[in-house]
This record gives sequence, structure tokens and C-alpha cells, in this order.
Amino acid sequence: MAVTSGSAPAAKRTRMSPEARRDQLVELGLDMVRDRPLEQVSIDAIAEAAGVSRALLFHYFESKQDFHVAIARAQADEMLECTEPDPRLGDPITMLSASMSAFVDYVSDNRKAYMAFMRGSSSADPAMREVFDQTRSVMASRVFDHAPALGISVTPVVEMTVQGWISFVEETTISWLTDPVITRDQLLALITAALPALAAVVPQV
Amino acid sequence: MAVTSGSAPAAKRTRMSPEARRDQLVELGLDMVRDRPLEQVSIDAIAEAAGVSRALLFHYFESKQDFHVAIARAQADEMLECTEPDPRLGDPITMLSASMSAFVDYVSDNRKAYMAFMRGSSSADPAMREVFDQTRSVMASRVFDHAPALGISVTPVVEMTVQGWISFVEETTISWLTDPVITRDQLLALITAALPALAAVVPQV
Repeated sequence: MAVTSGSAPAAKRTRMSPEARRDQLVELGLDMVRDRPLEQVSIDAIAEAAGVSRALLFHYFESKQDFHVAIARAQADEMLECTEPDPRLGDPITMLSASMSAFVDYVSDNRKAYMAFMRGSSSADPAMREVFDQTRSVMASRVFDHAPALGISVTPVVEMTVQGWISFVEETTISWLTDPVITRDQLLALITAALPALAAVVPQV
Repeated sequence: MAVTSGSAPAAKRTRMSPEARRDQLVELGLDMVRDRPLEQVSIDAIAEAAGVSRALLFHYFESKQDFHVAIARAQADEMLECTEPDPRLGDPITMLSASMSAFVDYVSDNRKAYMAFMRGSSSADPAMREVFDQTRSVMASRVFDHAPALGISVTPVVEMTVQGWISFVEETTISWLTDPVITRDQLLALITAALPALAAVVPQV
């Protein structure tokens, strides 16, 4: 998905391919959730910025909820893109730390959208839940990919523990965004060190 | 809140004090969520079991949602009651393990209600969120109460870590209820050992 097209909003009506138009609308939505929760992204404001009618927007997205899910998915893609582990870093813990650093920066830059995504009224919607579960699943599979390099075999109980660690990361990060009782570097140290600490207490099955 | 009155459903209309009636209705709701998600608790079925009219039920609870929140609160109280740390056990880790054991049993016995509470469509409702946050807050404060006995001072970063640990417990327990890849005792060992493991990596501030 093109999440970095960076095109300026077209104020006048221009003819675009359906795919380009859809991307443009999602892109405008993405810009809008930088500083407000998804629930507050207005269809009228997006249509106006894109220079299209409300009716045309609903031609691309079945409902407001459907449009919001597309924005959430684009945002999840953007987050996953910038937290992609960099194999050139070599050591798995260094890679993990770099990914977590990018994660903390991303959610800091998009705190309103992130908190609404995690806690907002739309978070229980099944389609939104699916975006949420898919995102977690990509995060988990990245850990699984690098676990063998740390001498950890990926058994079902390790998978369960990694998913629990992701919840730990999400919870502490949301808590830190709400009330930063520690520095960014201390948060980063905590969430990074938590993974091997939890892996060390996984019961042998 | 009286959650263990254990009275049999009254099939005939009987005169009760407003408080007793309210408790009776919540109690019937609690019985009903043993085997189905809260969203499926029918107002008509509750009214019939209590031998009251739908209108009378709505005299006690402003809306279906309000009634559902009362049931969720009663269920949270019940869970907190049976996981209350027992000081006679002496050692904080033994107490923690006993509380976690009661927690795993409670959610196993009430799995449908618990999973719906954590993941269902009502979980984003602000009143439901409040029940959720208050329950977590009681769980966290019990840990804080016993942390000094383990040589841990309760600083803001420790509080944040404990809240993250609660998320870890919830996530792994839900995963285990869905797909029990390990035994109950292994889950218990994992969630109990996770707390001191995470406490050990809290950054010094």
C-alpha cells in the first residue's frame, strides 16, 4: 500500500484512476489522524480536501467505518514499515532495540491515533480487531524469525509468551504516552529487556 | 456487593426491597454469563426468571447497557473476591501464586464471559472501560502492597511495569483459554514467574 505518496491535497476536482483516488483519500485520512483520534476524522473534511463529493467517497468506501478501517490499516502498515528489523545490525538484541526505538518514536508522533486505535470506541469493531490482530501477528513473527539466533526454539508456549510481551509493550507504552514517568530511553530499555526476561521464565514443556 | 446470595430464581412475582430486587436481577445476569457472552444476556429472559416485567427491570437499570455494566461489575467483584491474597500464606511469591491460581480457575469457569468482557463489542464502552480499569487497578494495588516484602520499592516505573505485567497475564490467559498449548500448571508457572522477571529489568531512575 502506498503510504508515502506525499502528494499535496488537490483542491480542484481532477480525474484520477480508481486506485490512485482510493490511495489519495486514505492518505488524506492518514494526515488527519496525526493529531486527532480516528473517530474524529470527518468524511466531509476529507471529501473537501480531495475535491470530491461525499457520494464519490462512499463509492470507494462502503461506510464511514469502512473508511476508518482503511486508514487504520494504512497506519499499521506505516508503523510496521518503520519498525522493520534491519539485518545489517547483526545482533538480534540490537535489532530488537532499534525496532522498539522506531516503535516508540512512531507512536509518540501519532499518539492520539494510536491511543484511540488501542482504546477508542471503534477498537471493538471486528474489522478493526482484524487490523489489530494482523499487526500484532507481524510483530510476533518478526520475533520468531530471530529467536533461533538467541538459542530459543519457537514452540507454542514461546509464541504465547511473545504475544504476552507485545501486550506488555503496548500497555507500558500507552501508560508512558499518558504519563511519562520515565525518559524515552528508560522506556526503551524496559520494553527491550522484557523480552529476554520473559523468554527466560518460559516453562519447559 | 452481594454476589453469593445463591437464591433460586423466583418464578412468581414477589415483593422485594429495591436493593434486594436490584441484587436479584444482577445475580440472575451473573448466572447467565457463566455460559454465554454478556452481549447475549437477554433482558426478557432475566425479567421472566425474576418474575418481573421488562418495565420494572428498566426501572432499576436505565438501559440494557447499564444492566450489562452492573453484571460486569458484579463479575469483576466476584473475581477480585476469590483472588484476594491470603496473608496466612506468608511468603509474597506463594501468595501471588495462590492468587494467580484462583484467577486461572475463575476465568476458566467463566471463559465466555471473560473473553467477551476483554474482546467483545461492549469492551470499548466508557462505563465498561471503567469497570475494566478499576479491576486492573485493584489487581495492581495488591502487587504494590506486597512488593516491599520482596525488596521492591513502588516507584512510578514499577507501577507501570506491574500494569504491563497485568496485560501480559490477561493476554497469555486469553490465548491459553482459546488454545491450551500448555497445562494449567505451566500457565500458572509462567504468569507467576513473569512478575519478578519483569521487576528485575526495571530501569533504575
